[in-house]
Amino acid sequence: MRGAMIHAPRDIRFETLDDPKILAPTDAVIRTAVTCVCGSDLWPYRGLEPTDEPHPMGHEYVGFVEEVGSEVTAVKPGQFVIGSFATSDNTCVNCRNGFQSNCLHREFMSTCQADYVRIPNAQGTLVATDQVPGEELWPSLLAVSDVMGTGWWAADAAEVGPGSTAVVVGDGAVGLCAVIAAKEMGAERIIAMSRHETRQKLAREFGATDIVTERGAEGVARIRELTGGIGADSVLECVGTEEAMHQALRCARPGGNVGFVGVPHGVAVDGQELFFSHVGLRGGPAPVRRYLPDLVDRVLSGAITPGKVFDLTLPLDQVAEGYAAMDERRAIKTLLKP
Amino acid sequence: MRGAMIHAPRDIRFETLDDPKILAPTDAVIRTAVTCVCGSDLWPYRGLEPTDEPHPMGHEYVGFVEEVGSEVTAVKPGQFVIGSFATSDNTCVNCRNGFQSNCLHREFMSTCQADYVRIPNAQGTLVATDQVPGEELWPSLLAVSDVMGTGWWAADAAEVGPGSTAVVVGDGAVGLCAVIAAKEMGAERIIAMSRHETRQKLAREFGATDIVTERGAEGVARIRELTGGIGADSVLECVGTEEAMHQALRCARPGGNVGFVGVPHGVAVDGQELFFSHVGLRGGPAPVRRYLPDLVDRVLSGAITPGKVFDLTLPLDQVAEGYAAMDERRAIKTLLKP
Repeated sequence: MRGAMIHAPRDIRFETLDDPKILAPTDAVIRTAVTCVCGSDLWPYRGLEPTDEPHPMGHEYVGFVEEVGSEVTAVKPGQFVIGSFATSDNTCVNCRNGFQSNCLHREFMSTCQADYVRIPNAQGTLVATDQVPGEELWPSLLAVSDVMGTGWWAADAAEVGPGSTAVVVGDGAVGLCAVIAAKEMGAERIIAMSRHETRQKLAREFGATDIVTERGAEGVARIRELTGGIGADSVLECVGTEEAMHQALRCARPGGNVGFVGVPHGVAVDGQELFFSHVGLRGGPAPVRRYLPDLVDRVLSGAITPGKVFDLTLPLDQVAEGYAAMDERRAIKTLLKP
Repeated sequence: MRGAMIHAPRDIRFETLDDPKILAPTDAVIRTAVTCVCGSDLWPYRGLEPTDEPHPMGHEYVGFVEEVGSEVTAVKPGQFVIGSFATSDNTCVNCRNGFQSNCLHREFMSTCQADYVRIPNAQGTLVATDQVPGEELWPSLLAVSDVMGTGWWAADAAEVGPGSTAVVVGDGAVGLCAVIAAKEMGAERIIAMSRHETRQKLAREFGATDIVTERGAEGVARIRELTGGIGADSVLECVGTEEAMHQALRCARPGGNVGFVGVPHGVAVDGQELFFSHVGLRGGPAPVRRYLPDLVDRVLSGAITPGKVFDLTLPLDQVAEGYAAMDERRAIKTLLKP
């Protein structure tokens, strides 16, 4: 089969690789229906995370079950399945507590920009649809496997509730999906912090009521102006930089909540500042599996269309161009078709 | 009147001071029934917070209303009242959100180790009892104005719930009151981290089911051993040092909660560690006013007896000895009688 490998920063190659095999009785192998490039893939692409040796890339996927291990009974060959970037047995104590992305048997996916993918913990990870959904739904179902699940988690961790005010920091695919989540959870006012016109437009389409283009201290001042001087009930941090985290914490009202879902790079939170803010802070890799059945239903019913974050579609063999387009901000998110 | 002044580290003097007066129509002046020394008073006492010039000390109080400003109608001269170390109007948006210790008109109390005390924002801050309670209840009511309210907040911020496992980091008066709070909120297992026998005993009396004497990495390992390898649902951080905060974060299970109520001194939280832990973190000065009516009822009904944290009672004029005894860990907490 063929798949993407990173060799060094800005060096993504589409290569012939060994076909994945069932290695454990809990594995499945799927044929990729569609896959994509994630904002977090840009960290190694830009050299901000080291690439010590060439390795496969990609952690988002929907596909058709090809083969299952002997212990996998929940899905069958031929079924269309959606999973998560973090696999989980869905039975351990952390899974039962709703934190499947902290499963005791967790393995992070990392080989999905390929024709075929091995899925560890398939029994607990994969959710099959009743029927093969129409191709027009695949992008939104793909989004559920990571960016939509992560945006949902941002809103959940930030405790967005009916009638509340939510601020979304970050206008990448996750931030845009976080707008969808805030809207679905009943936020009355959704303020998207974005300075890119195409993203602002999509944020509005997804439910943003206000756009703030300022950043840093000016952005915080603008949010306070819009929220009666005190800040927002919920702030959804969808970037992962120190600047974004501080901006998020300072946009929340006393006793408000920040959900942070961008993998933090060089972020330290000052204990005393957090203390006097009364702000609650929770983040982490999204427990997508917890939300998967609900989010799949919302996509199938047409309630949400997170697939709109894909504004560039390429054949899988042009994966390198998919990275370049996102790196240069020519695309929000690249869909890849095998 | 007479009151305590700090002049320099370890230099507490009991001096003749001006009688407090009504300065604003929202003020009250109370005659102190009992007051005390707080663990946080030891920061300047030990020189860990600077004392640039002599100033009064003390922020815990119960007393009798002497005089009220023209806008104070909620309490009357002669009534027995309990307040909070942070005053609040109890009407602003932060108060309505339940964060009275972040009131837009907040003033922190700082002159309470004295015969008389001026209470700003008296209307929103003071709660009067129906009758003057018996003197045997005064220590517990005094505890409610700070350490018991703060222990309650630790448990609330850490989302202690029925049947849960709670760990309390810190065996000072706040930590011991946090044990009471965890018990009242229905925790099934309450693990107190303490290496002092008298405090362990009181922790057990208050409801602790287990005592862990180890600290740091060893303490974390012991907590994991006691919690099926994953950590506790709720951790109540009642110290404020970096070591205590890290210990607390690492004692919580994935997706658990840390409530931190010790004023952080030199604490930085690593964003990536917090991220991958999924732990929720919330702290701050306790919104005592939110809990005051309920906690006063629990004391008056005999359900809780937080006054037991006072293991040394001195006349107010021996306040300096009260500090020394706590500094040298001869006393958990010193009650002072005018």
